Parts: sequence; C-alpha cells; structure tokens
Amino acid sequence: MSTPKSISPFELRQRIRRGEHTGNTSGYCPGYVQGNLAILPKAYADEFLMFCQLNPKPCPIIGLSSRPGEYRLPDLGQDVDIRTDVPRYRVFANGEVQTEVTDIKEYWQDDMVAFLLGCSFSFEEALIADGIEIRNITEGVNVPMYRTNIPCRSAGRFSSTTVVSMRPMKTADAIRAIQICSRFPSVHGAPLHFGNPAEIGIRDINAPEFGDPVTINEGEVPVFWACGVTPQVAIEAAKPPICITHAGGHMLVTDLSNSRMAIL
Amino acid sequence: MSTPKSISPFELRQRIRRGEHTGNTSGYCPGYVQGNLAILPKAYADEFLMFCQLNPKPCPIIGLSSRPGEYRLPDLGQDVDIRTDVPRYRVFANGEVQTEVTDIKEYWQDDMVAFLLGCSFSFEEALIADGIEIRNITEGVNVPMYRTNIPCRSAGRFSSTTVVSMRPMKTADAIRAIQICSRFPSVHGAPLHFGNPAEIGIRDINAPEFGDPVTINEGEVPVFWACGVTPQVAIEAAKPPICITHAGGHMLVTDLSNSRMAIL
Repeated sequence: MSTPKSISPFELRQRIRRGEHTGNTSGYCPGYVQGNLAILPKAYADEFLMFCQLNPKPCPIIGLSSRPGEYRLPDLGQDVDIRTDVPRYRVFANGEVQTEVTDIKEYWQDDMVAFLLGCSFSFEEALIADGIEIRNITEGVNVPMYRTNIPCRSAGRFSSTTVVSMRPMKTADAIRAIQICSRFPSVHGAPLHFGNPAEIGIRDINAPEFGDPVTINEGEVPVFWACGVTPQVAIEAAKPPICITHAGGHMLVTDLSNSRMAIL
Repeated sequence: MSTPKSISPFELRQRIRRGEHTGNTSGYCPGYVQGNLAILPKAYADEFLMFCQLNPKPCPIIGLSSRPGEYRLPDLGQDVDIRTDVPRYRVFANGEVQTEVTDIKEYWQDDMVAFLLGCSFSFEEALIADGIEIRNITEGVNVPMYRTNIPCRSAGRFSSTTVVSMRPMKTADAIRAIQICSRFPSVHGAPLHFGNPAEIGIRDINAPEFGDPVTINEGEVPVFWACGVTPQVAIEAAKPPICITHAGGHMLVTDLSNSRMAIL
C-alpha cells in the first residue's frame, strides 16, 4: 500500500516505524520541515556540536538529544523516536559506510547524541511558492553539489571545506532568492556565492562531486548555497568509531512547519 | 563661514533659507534622510503621483504637499518651507532647464505640488556602516548611472525606461548589499540587477549616461539599483510648462533618520 504524500508527519513516522514506508521522503508532508540526521557518541558529539556552532550556514542545528542516550526528540514532533522514525539509515565505522538499515535499535548506545540539521527542502519550498523554478526539481534529479575552497572553522577532529549546492536562475530570481532565503537562517540561509564558480574553487560546473549536473540556460547565473553534505564530509574526516546518518533523501520528517523556520 | 557637516538638519535648513549655505548637501547631517525634489503644477502632479505609485523602485515617495499650493512639509521636518530650504533649485520650462536659483518664491504657484523622493544616500550609509566599500565615494566622483531597457509603467504624459545607478563590489558584498537594501524599500530597495550589463540594455559600462565611470576590479560584479534620475527623465519627456527640481547634489535634508527608513 503506497503512502499518500499529503499524510501528516506523525502518521508518516508511525508508518516508517512499523516498516510500512521504507522509501525516500521527498515530496511527503508538504509544508513540514525535513532534516538531515547525524548520530555520534558523546566523545565526538561535543566536538561536532562545536563544529556546527562555528559553521551555522552549512550546519544549522534544528534539534538534538537533550542528553546522551536520549533517542526521543519531542521538540521535533509528537512521539519522535530517532531510532525508528527515519526510513533508511546509513551506519559508518571509522568514517566508512558499513551498512544501510531501516531501524537502528541494535546500534543505539547509551552515550549517543542525535543531531537534526536543517536542509534545503525548506527553502526550496519557499522559492517555489514565490514562483521561482528549481532546476533540479524540474529536471527530476538530485541537486548538484560541489566541494569549494571556502574553509569551515575546525572543532577538534572535525574539519572540512564548505560543500555547496547550486541552483541556476535568472538574475532577478537570484536577487529574490537571496531575499527569501535570508529569512531562513536555520535552513542554510542566504546563498554564499553566485556567478563565477572558479572564485570559490569549483573547477567544472558540469561535474558536481555530489548529486547530478543540471542545465544552466543562457542568461542564468549559478547560485550557491551552503550544503548539509559539509557536516557529512567533516564526520568522514573525523573517523568516529561509529556514526549513523540518514540515507540520502530518507529524512526525518518533523512536525515543525517550514514557514515557522522563517525569522521574519 | 563654512557650515559644519554635523550640524542638525533644522539648523542647516535655516542657514540655507538665509542664503548662508548654497553648496551641495553631500555628507551633511549624517544619519538623516536627504531627498530628491520635484515640483509640478497640479495638472501634471496627479499624473506624476500615479507614475511614482506605479514605479516605486525608481520613484519612492517619502513626502509630498498635503494639497496644491502647500509649500510647508511638516512631516519631513520642523518648519520646512520647500521654496527656500533647498540650497539650489533647477527650473524647467517644457522639459528644458531655464535657470538655477537658490530660492523659488518668485516661481511658486498656488497650484504647485512638491514631491520628495528617497535617494541612494540613505542606503549607501547603511552599506558603509556594514563595512562595504562604495566605489564612487572612495574615488570621490558621482555614482555612474545608465539608461536601461527596463520599462517603467506609464501614467498619462509620464513615461521612461528605468535609469539605474551602479556600484561594483565583491560577490559576498553584493549578497550582503541585497539583504541590507531590502530593508529600505523607500530609498530604492534591493538592487534590480547584477552582473552582465548588456542584459538590461547597457552598452558600455565605462560610459555612463549620467555621473562618472568608476573602477571595477577583478573579481567584482557591477550591482545595479533603480535610480532617482528616472523620474527626472520622465518629467523631461512629459514637458510640463513649469517644473522645479533640486540641482544635482543639492538636496532637501529632512529630520527623518535614515535608520527609520528601514522596514525591519
């Protein structure tokens, strides 16, 4: 039985918990915040928290465990259990992927801290509502993402350069996108850059390191946002003995509304 | 006796009224709004008001006569008399400059309506306070201004394409400038365009139609704002039998603070 996309976040999480929905969450529960998950043991979590605080544009925290071992995140939604309510998890050991699972009860440890980070779905929704085309959505592919030379501030074992996502648009739309996204600092906020990719160390705009290339039409400029892949790169570099994230596109869907992410 | 730049707006206007200050107002009364003046007879003023309403980015009204013939503008400052409180006026007949004078009492008519329009001084001050360099100020010249192919909406005899001012800056500063200027819709607001000048019909960035060219350094993008010269061009095209404006740089200095122009 397929899940209706307009289902409530609570109902979707319950289905996911019961194993009835194991696919991605793209397009589900429109209007509600979806977030990137990172779970780390306390010895790494403290440094990761500092890394996020120092680099809020790529790593905007919208929720975390209230203490080590806490897998319930009531601030993010009714009855959220972070061990079961994400449709697909990726388990890392020493920075390398070990397996993908649909439930992490067997991996959960008493010292684990879960972080939920804001993601671009929220601001893409606001841009679309304003009539701005999001090329990767139009073309049905993943957003193109690139490593840059923009340094992040390091925290303990966590360090990275900034990974950015790119959306091409007409100049007038880029100005409007800067205005709209400035209202959403907790989901990456305003773009970091537009125009010349080389200026931020991107060699080939047609060869993204993550995601897929998209068409850039005549008269359009590439617009670059800080991307939630940045903390993943930092985690891989820190090589914690264990780390659990969501699998790409398989997010935690919260009860928070996207519009409540706006500061204005 | 030279006028100290930090004089209060009221004191400056009183000196201007007494004929003790006839120079430009650039840099005077920092923190206070200076405005572009346009005075038209009622038969034209109604259409001009509509033109401004239809084109708020180039023509942001911050004050006007409460009825035809009213030369006092109390909303703009203590004891403002628009016939005497601007240091230098330009008098037009049928769209052509006739003379420049320091007092327009002899030209004032009972059917005249005065308009004060927001100007870029206000947002430039906000940009400088944020640490952004304004090239025309650094180089001590007038901001470069260009005719574009961006149409204004016409109102009666008033029509024009949009004139823009240009300030070059690094991309990160351009994004910040869009954020800052979005807070100031009554002084031209966010830029209209950045990057490729040809896209808005500018043939030669080094040959502005008004003002002076400025240096654009490697790695900088030209950023374009709607400009208060636009209504002047519309007035010249409408050819009213009489029109009075300020002479360039010789503005009405109001008691309104620039920071109060911010909507947020």
